[in-house]
Amino acid sequence: MLDEGLNKREIQRILEKKLSSDCSYNSGYILGSMCTDANEFGKNIYCKYISKNLGDPGLFPGTAELEDDLVGEIGELFNGKDIIGSFTTGGSEANLIAMRIAKKLRPDIDEPNVVLPVSAHMSFDKAADFLNIKLKKAKLKPNFELDMEHFKSLINEKTCGVIGIAGTTSLGLVDPVSQIGKYIHGKDIFFHVDAAFGGFVLPFLKLLGYNIPPWDFSVEQVDSITADPHKMGMGIIPSGGYFLRNEKIFERTGFEIPYLAGGNFKHLHIVGTRSGGTVIGFWAIMQYLGIQGFTEVVKKCMENTEYLSENIRKIDGIKLAAEPMMNIVGITTENGESICELDEELRKLKWKLGKFMKFNLIRIVIMPHVTQAHLSHFIQDLKKVVKKLNLA
Amino acid sequence: MLDEGLNKREIQRILEKKLSSDCSYNSGYILGSMCTDANEFGKNIYCKYISKNLGDPGLFPGTAELEDDLVGEIGELFNGKDIIGSFTTGGSEANLIAMRIAKKLRPDIDEPNVVLPVSAHMSFDKAADFLNIKLKKAKLKPNFELDMEHFKSLINEKTCGVIGIAGTTSLGLVDPVSQIGKYIHGKDIFFHVDAAFGGFVLPFLKLLGYNIPPWDFSVEQVDSITADPHKMGMGIIPSGGYFLRNEKIFERTGFEIPYLAGGNFKHLHIVGTRSGGTVIGFWAIMQYLGIQGFTEVVKKCMENTEYLSENIRKIDGIKLAAEPMMNIVGITTENGESICELDEELRKLKWKLGKFMKFNLIRIVIMPHVTQAHLSHFIQDLKKVVKKLNLA
Repeated sequence: MLDEGLNKREIQRILEKKLSSDCSYNSGYILGSMCTDANEFGKNIYCKYISKNLGDPGLFPGTAELEDDLVGEIGELFNGKDIIGSFTTGGSEANLIAMRIAKKLRPDIDEPNVVLPVSAHMSFDKAADFLNIKLKKAKLKPNFELDMEHFKSLINEKTCGVIGIAGTTSLGLVDPVSQIGKYIHGKDIFFHVDAAFGGFVLPFLKLLGYNIPPWDFSVEQVDSITADPHKMGMGIIPSGGYFLRNEKIFERTGFEIPYLAGGNFKHLHIVGTRSGGTVIGFWAIMQYLGIQGFTEVVKKCMENTEYLSENIRKIDGIKLAAEPMMNIVGITTENGESICELDEELRKLKWKLGKFMKFNLIRIVIMPHVTQAHLSHFIQDLKKVVKKLNLA
Repeated sequence: MLDEGLNKREIQRILEKKLSSDCSYNSGYILGSMCTDANEFGKNIYCKYISKNLGDPGLFPGTAELEDDLVGEIGELFNGKDIIGSFTTGGSEANLIAMRIAKKLRPDIDEPNVVLPVSAHMSFDKAADFLNIKLKKAKLKPNFELDMEHFKSLINEKTCGVIGIAGTTSLGLVDPVSQIGKYIHGKDIFFHVDAAFGGFVLPFLKLLGYNIPPWDFSVEQVDSITADPHKMGMGIIPSGGYFLRNEKIFERTGFEIPYLAGGNFKHLHIVGTRSGGTVIGFWAIMQYLGIQGFTEVVKKCMENTEYLSENIRKIDGIKLAAEPMMNIVGITTENGESICELDEELRKLKWKLGKFMKFNLIRIVIMPHVTQAHLSHFIQDLKKVVKKLNLA
């Protein structure tokens, strides 16, 4: 650490140099990330309220009320009524909260397990590691849809929770949430839906006329949902959301925090100090864009998704891993060759893609920062690489 | 959710109204929080880099390198060499990481326990809940110092970790870290120090000539340290830090994340997406203030601490719970009456204080936003309330 501080201009100069190797979203090369630049207006609002701490809501009752309003509003967007919840540091914390609740609600089970698709996000593996829950992973069918028969067969008397995904990490597919719901109906099993990505896509796709299977609180057995502002909500990093149907579950499983300056309260979070600014920022984005604005963004992303898909279909040697349900495209080889070399060659050309070796696919996420011009450039490179590797 | 979005001005108007009940740090009424307004320059820098995501460091190699540099720099401030680590969502995540490591390193223990002072932060209770670790809490002596004999007596063959606190949540006291170190020397026990608050106070207090017992990597048995930028580092909410001495431990316990756009990597975090901006912001604060700047801030806080303490000593009916070691003051009653009424009456006068019923004390944290004028106002109210309650 320096003894004497530097002046601001000097610091900015050093910083710009140090950060020059960072990629930027608007370069177009980031094709495999579920994050994007936050909405500009939301960012400006956020920067005004950076120091609000929802870890001590009694100090910031206005922000706390705004959070409750926003949770309710999103709960309604997800076809729920009087939904409670709060904003987290991201989908991982929200999923960890859900897994903890599943375990806590069944203290009678000695070695609890949770049944989930093999396509579930890494955060469930982390949560299982932390919570010492056994994960029972259901296979996918060759078309990457959940093998529902296998899923059902994994549920047993030690199952405390089941997970459905609305927007899988690898392909953006939606699990048969209502089938899962029907199967566990009447069983004492917690049902969580991970819509970290899909939460702020699916409601708008539906309005655009897409055929969207039920995935949210409209399925009566769904107990809670993860949905992330910092993905397709275009919110500030880091912000996730956890939405819970039943207040009694919150009462039973929340942590009591006794000593805060703002007075006692209860929460489900791993974290103590918690950004109020990200919540205010996302509230502002929701008010600013409205349903129409979000729908417009999703429409654009889907047009670009279709543009990319159409072009991939035309390239011999590679194919779509599955028909996209939302703005995520999976590329695989036509004849089953490993995608590793393909990924490596594209990486040499600066493309930053998601590589899913367990499904042998490359993931492209058509976030709002991705334009048709970027995709056109990518398609050219993709064609060259496919040719170079003799995949056709 | 609104169908059509509102215009920006309208949103700002609604927002200002909704947030009008929030407290502000510069009102002076927030006396019981460990958070404060972030340093203005750091905030400005941060706002330029909000969308960088260290959850995918391959996309932001410059930011990732900056983080490593900063960790190393702070490691040296904490008397370590080649310290590794990363920035977290706060002290709670950092402490949870430490607790997980303690457990992971001792898979041979069936029902592991961690020994820690009863003054340890709530996040250890959360971590124990998540990880199913038994907490064995050592008593404090009447002067609120750790009862070292009791602490030692709790350590047994099932102990996978011990925790020392450098800046307790309630009183800012520092545990006898080197005594703990000596006692566990040669035993296969992970030693974590929670300096979430003290980390960015103690090094500067030492430079100011205060007598600071060893609490950091200078104690050879200390394996890891939590220290939070968003407390006395004046960093952005949320930002904590986890600092680890031994890289092999990282290799053994980190999570492997295989599919990212920036390529594979390993981390210890609960979260996936992780703010790069908060790290850049804190780097900028460190460069801007330097040791001199931080020391100046701490000096000011300590002058105010002394001012408050001096006045409390003069008020009959209440007393200091302990002599402050840093900028935290505990107030208790002289004759053992409960502090609840005192807290309640002060709260009616708008003061936001920390209430620690288990130690029967009210906590005042003299953060950089607290001025002598605020304290003078508080002391007047305190005198009135003590009189009203007939505590003298």
